[in-house]
Amino acid sequence: MKKIAIIGFGVVGSGVYEIVRQNKDILTKKAGEEIDVKRILDIRDFSAHEEANLFTKDFNELLNDDEISIVVETMGGIKFAYDYTKALLESGKSVVTSNKELVAAHGDEFFRIAKEKNVRYLYEASVGGGIPVIRPLANDVSANDIVKVSGILNGTTNYILTKMFKENSSFEDALKTAQKLGYAEKDPTADVDGIDAQRKISILMSLVTGKKIDCALVNAKGIRTITAEDVSYAEKLGCTIKLIGYGYTKDGKVSASVEPMLIPKNCPLSSVEDVFNAVMVKGNMVDDLMFYGRGAGKSPTASAVVGDVIDIVRSPEYNPYFSWEKSGEDFFIPYEEVTARFFIRVKETEKAKEVFGAEDFVSGKDDFAFITNEITVRQLREKIAEISPVNIIRLYN
Amino acid sequence: MKKIAIIGFGVVGSGVYEIVRQNKDILTKKAGEEIDVKRILDIRDFSAHEEANLFTKDFNELLNDDEISIVVETMGGIKFAYDYTKALLESGKSVVTSNKELVAAHGDEFFRIAKEKNVRYLYEASVGGGIPVIRPLANDVSANDIVKVSGILNGTTNYILTKMFKENSSFEDALKTAQKLGYAEKDPTADVDGIDAQRKISILMSLVTGKKIDCALVNAKGIRTITAEDVSYAEKLGCTIKLIGYGYTKDGKVSASVEPMLIPKNCPLSSVEDVFNAVMVKGNMVDDLMFYGRGAGKSPTASAVVGDVIDIVRSPEYNPYFSWEKSGEDFFIPYEEVTARFFIRVKETEKAKEVFGAEDFVSGKDDFAFITNEITVRQLREKIAEISPVNIIRLYN
Repeated sequence: MKKIAIIGFGVVGSGVYEIVRQNKDILTKKAGEEIDVKRILDIRDFSAHEEANLFTKDFNELLNDDEISIVVETMGGIKFAYDYTKALLESGKSVVTSNKELVAAHGDEFFRIAKEKNVRYLYEASVGGGIPVIRPLANDVSANDIVKVSGILNGTTNYILTKMFKENSSFEDALKTAQKLGYAEKDPTADVDGIDAQRKISILMSLVTGKKIDCALVNAKGIRTITAEDVSYAEKLGCTIKLIGYGYTKDGKVSASVEPMLIPKNCPLSSVEDVFNAVMVKGNMVDDLMFYGRGAGKSPTASAVVGDVIDIVRSPEYNPYFSWEKSGEDFFIPYEEVTARFFIRVKETEKAKEVFGAEDFVSGKDDFAFITNEITVRQLREKIAEISPVNIIRLYN
Repeated sequence: MKKIAIIGFGVVGSGVYEIVRQNKDILTKKAGEEIDVKRILDIRDFSAHEEANLFTKDFNELLNDDEISIVVETMGGIKFAYDYTKALLESGKSVVTSNKELVAAHGDEFFRIAKEKNVRYLYEASVGGGIPVIRPLANDVSANDIVKVSGILNGTTNYILTKMFKENSSFEDALKTAQKLGYAEKDPTADVDGIDAQRKISILMSLVTGKKIDCALVNAKGIRTITAEDVSYAEKLGCTIKLIGYGYTKDGKVSASVEPMLIPKNCPLSSVEDVFNAVMVKGNMVDDLMFYGRGAGKSPTASAVVGDVIDIVRSPEYNPYFSWEKSGEDFFIPYEEVTARFFIRVKETEKAKEVFGAEDFVSGKDDFAFITNEITVRQLREKIAEISPVNIIRLYN
């Protein structure tokens, strides 16, 4: 019998509890021994819960319980989660988390402690909700040089963009509907400004390279500037618009960024709709793979957490292939050096012809759009200073 | 240094050799030690190969070499591959295969021997080419009761069907093009009649249930009967047609079958085109997942094989979660008991109204089509005996 504890009985934490109860026999079969929840830490009052005896407000009841060998951290945030995770790993317990903010910020430190103590720190649920992404990257594509990872990593923005395309909603209206349905928070900043996706692409590229990508280096632009007119242009171009976390490796260096991109309809990412997520992985041998599914929600995310718990029951010792270390300087390719093609809307075509050598323009309601050749972001910034563009969207490639 | 051997230097076998050479540093990093090819068994002449010294025609040179601990079997077929695999496992070597025919037919026996000898028999490349499917099913979704597995498991037929839809080709013309491009064999039976997909869905459902699904039980229908007129109907219905391997579990029993199905455009499987494959997995907690990528080809398939080799270098001991056992009677749900809706084309509508209670008909060039309510295949067969249908296609659900 393996005893686990849960820290944070919110959406995901309560989902973990429910899976352990509901799929008990499956878990026993898959883990090779029974898994049981012994303690749940939450500062709120759960005295009316049918297993109220499991709840505690005292972290030390988890930390000092030698029977508990695996702790699930689903509380989110940094402050307490950092202290708890560190103390648990140092005491020789394995930790499973869905907390992308914490993994992105302090993963390297936790992996170092996990290695010292020969325990595990797993985080499958931190990216892509229920979609297996972390473990495939750590295990399945190991024969490959991973040259690119790109994906729809945030369900809220994908829901909003899908609504803008399908129902010609404005960003504001789509956001309101998302909030009404519980897909977006009251303060939607982390989602719509790309901060959530920024953490996730940092985690993915840190895993791929084995070196920590500092979130602060990852240029993140959200979807607030996408208008109904952009949607209309996209459709004319046979594209859709998705918020994409995009990373690649080149000559031993790594790039990562988040921004809305125009996706051609023949790219599998273009048909990922509503709150679904998808991650594309390009290996030098396997070419493009895509992993698709529910990127959020109680049961899917909890499914990934419990999958990690089962992995630890099967293999409790430190596994280097899920880890990354501090990175040195000169490892990150600055956003200015990223090369891409860009969709640019302008009020007049003359200046665009002159500065970009643009020839083919698409007409919109009040302006014109063209697509640049491959240029660096630095070149783009220099050139657009001359043309006062209405909007700019990167092309996915 | 881990020494491996390769049996069968065809497309996949030579791809394995090339990955070991080309991605050598990556493999060393990912496996934790260097991997090298020591011997290659092939009855053909490779004396002009730049590493001709590796080749042998004598199986005993592999079997009796204690330095070789992992053998890759990429020769295909049953006869020799069965004897070799059995002898290798019995001698305490792990075996990695891309040979779906062999895994489907004798997997249970090999897993038993692997368990006895505490070695591994892995087969990621046998389903979905380069797409991680076997390992995610064995590991990532372990918190779930897997209720359904369905997918486009054969690239040749998907190429043909894509061509029929995109270019209005007939089946015969599309097959000829596929043969010209090397996507279909001269004798295309195994692909177009669904035998390849039959083996793959057997493997997937055997893995999911832990009990062997005998291929002979799996009803398999290919795509030879799909006509341009069916394609035209499908488009009117907002659908595409794909050859689907389909399995589900219910009340401790399992069903598996292969047949062309009408797929609604909003299902992610509908946008999987050309030679690409995709597998959808439905878990009771995670809901629908999809794994997409190249289902065949030298480098993608070899990528999966080498991924298995790396897995064995990391974890050389028997792993029960990749295995299945002989199944008893009463475990398999006969095809007659499968419930679905069906698209049926008839010359006249009167009899269809009477027998099926059909009300809505779509008109085609020379006939009419309707869609049944949910019925069992047994009921379908009884009813169609009365109406002489032109064609019948199951609806994906």
